[in-house]
Amino acid sequence: MAENFADRLLAAVRAKNAPAVVGIDPVYSRLPAQISQHRELNDENDVEAALDAVLEFSRRVIRVLAPLVPAVKLNAAFFERYYQEGTEAYFELVQEAAAHGLIVIGDVKRGDVGHSSQMYAQAHLANPDFITLEELVAPDAVTVNPFAGLDGVQPFIDVARQQQKGIFVWVRPSNASASVLHDFANAEGRTFCEHLAQQVAEWGAGADLVGQAGYSCVGAVVGATPDHEATMKLRAMMPQAIFLVPGFGAQGGSAEDVAPCFKSDGTGALVAATRSVIYAYENPEYVQRFEGNWEACVEQGCKDFVAGLQQTVTITQ
Amino acid sequence: MAENFADRLLAAVRAKNAPAVVGIDPVYSRLPAQISQHRELNDENDVEAALDAVLEFSRRVIRVLAPLVPAVKLNAAFFERYYQEGTEAYFELVQEAAAHGLIVIGDVKRGDVGHSSQMYAQAHLANPDFITLEELVAPDAVTVNPFAGLDGVQPFIDVARQQQKGIFVWVRPSNASASVLHDFANAEGRTFCEHLAQQVAEWGAGADLVGQAGYSCVGAVVGATPDHEATMKLRAMMPQAIFLVPGFGAQGGSAEDVAPCFKSDGTGALVAATRSVIYAYENPEYVQRFEGNWEACVEQGCKDFVAGLQQTVTITQ
Repeated sequence: MAENFADRLLAAVRAKNAPAVVGIDPVYSRLPAQISQHRELNDENDVEAALDAVLEFSRRVIRVLAPLVPAVKLNAAFFERYYQEGTEAYFELVQEAAAHGLIVIGDVKRGDVGHSSQMYAQAHLANPDFITLEELVAPDAVTVNPFAGLDGVQPFIDVARQQQKGIFVWVRPSNASASVLHDFANAEGRTFCEHLAQQVAEWGAGADLVGQAGYSCVGAVVGATPDHEATMKLRAMMPQAIFLVPGFGAQGGSAEDVAPCFKSDGTGALVAATRSVIYAYENPEYVQRFEGNWEACVEQGCKDFVAGLQQTVTITQ
Repeated sequence: MAENFADRLLAAVRAKNAPAVVGIDPVYSRLPAQISQHRELNDENDVEAALDAVLEFSRRVIRVLAPLVPAVKLNAAFFERYYQEGTEAYFELVQEAAAHGLIVIGDVKRGDVGHSSQMYAQAHLANPDFITLEELVAPDAVTVNPFAGLDGVQPFIDVARQQQKGIFVWVRPSNASASVLHDFANAEGRTFCEHLAQQVAEWGAGADLVGQAGYSCVGAVVGATPDHEATMKLRAMMPQAIFLVPGFGAQGGSAEDVAPCFKSDGTGALVAATRSVIYAYENPEYVQRFEGNWEACVEQGCKDFVAGLQQTVTITQ
């Protein structure tokens, strides 16, 4: 792993011809009946039984996705909901995805003042420094909340530098209500979001953070929105940042909305789809086509997601 | 627990005559030698041994603090660092502190877009809905990161309303580097921090959220800084919010810095000290006075913290 995270990610995107990541946000009540109605897993009131079902589902989804996309994004919230067993399951899935050759992004949105962020960076991004856990790998990258400024982000950058990992600093949420905060503008019309983007560009600009392709291991989470001009501004302000782009598919973002996150050579963004892929078996069209085989539905959902992106973006490098 | 969280907290503050909370942020390397050098706990490279030491320390600190302060604040970062066992230990300490009659604040700084925040609110604030965990209690309140706007905070407010719990929305970090973001100002000179404060005041204003004393279960984390005028503005903008005030003691905040967080009747704020109390045995003055008895040092550190606050603030209600 002696390679800058951005270079590794770009190579993986090229290898699969897919600037795509699938989010794993499993909710018990939406699991396929074949899993949730399995007699030993069929109890949503029992934390271990419910989690076993979630874990079985997630493992099988990862196996289906592995040949199709370069990366998966595991959302910690959906595992923390199962207490310590959920934390264990989250790290089990990190191992499982890594073993399948996937780049693993931990969507943890952590961030606090410096000494707390140090602990979060140890917990979620650094490989364990305990000899009793030396076979455990942490995610290749995590999402970071920049609310406390550089002081709270630096511990994650330090781990990324030391261990050839990456971070995606949350710059623009994909939900509408966030605009009340992020569109707050100064006298020159610059928004808070743009002000933050400028900071993130500076935080990631160090020569020891930027890989051979010109991208930094400090990326940015930039939600897809219909305001393409705003996205193009962010793209120009953070030329070295790979954008992790949520909001595609079930959250309403279209291929046109994600296009401005890419540079003209087709690099620069990793688009995330979650519910439209992992719950593809809820789509009547797929159900009919694959006669209720839920894994075939997920596979097709992922293929359609990737094909949609390939129509939008051509990677020329 | 059929009482608004703000009313419960105020009653607890009055009962101890101490608008004070002690933060539990245990770091292995700073544990007292009597614990870290205990032969069975003496291995910082073994995750379980290290965590056992951290847990033993934290339990004994909680026992020492229980008669002196109304609340403790457990910082999740310092436990997550020990993986699933750390999550288990965190919830064990929540039970321990609750059993001692303390109000427990989970300092988790969680926040994401809506569906993820729902999961975080279930994970960290709601009492478990699993029948196999029905004896487990979650913290009475948690800190919340508002980066995604109301959409990301609402799930926590919903749990607070339904279960008579509380939240403290992070409005102003206590670290200097945060000001690059939070002092970003619009054409009228209003800062991002003030803009956010205005939102938080609105989010917490619902009649079903405000208790008999006029305070909401939606409070605010407002770091102590030397800019007292800025603090007074925030105090005026969020009249129904109880301020959770970090930055006192080891982080450099003085009694004068926290004073503007209180209203004239002495209510409205809960001041947090962490390292100056839980590591009081590193203070040579205490060590000499108590002949190296680390728990006596922590007790005196806490008493001195509370006495300092009592000199600053008189609770008249």
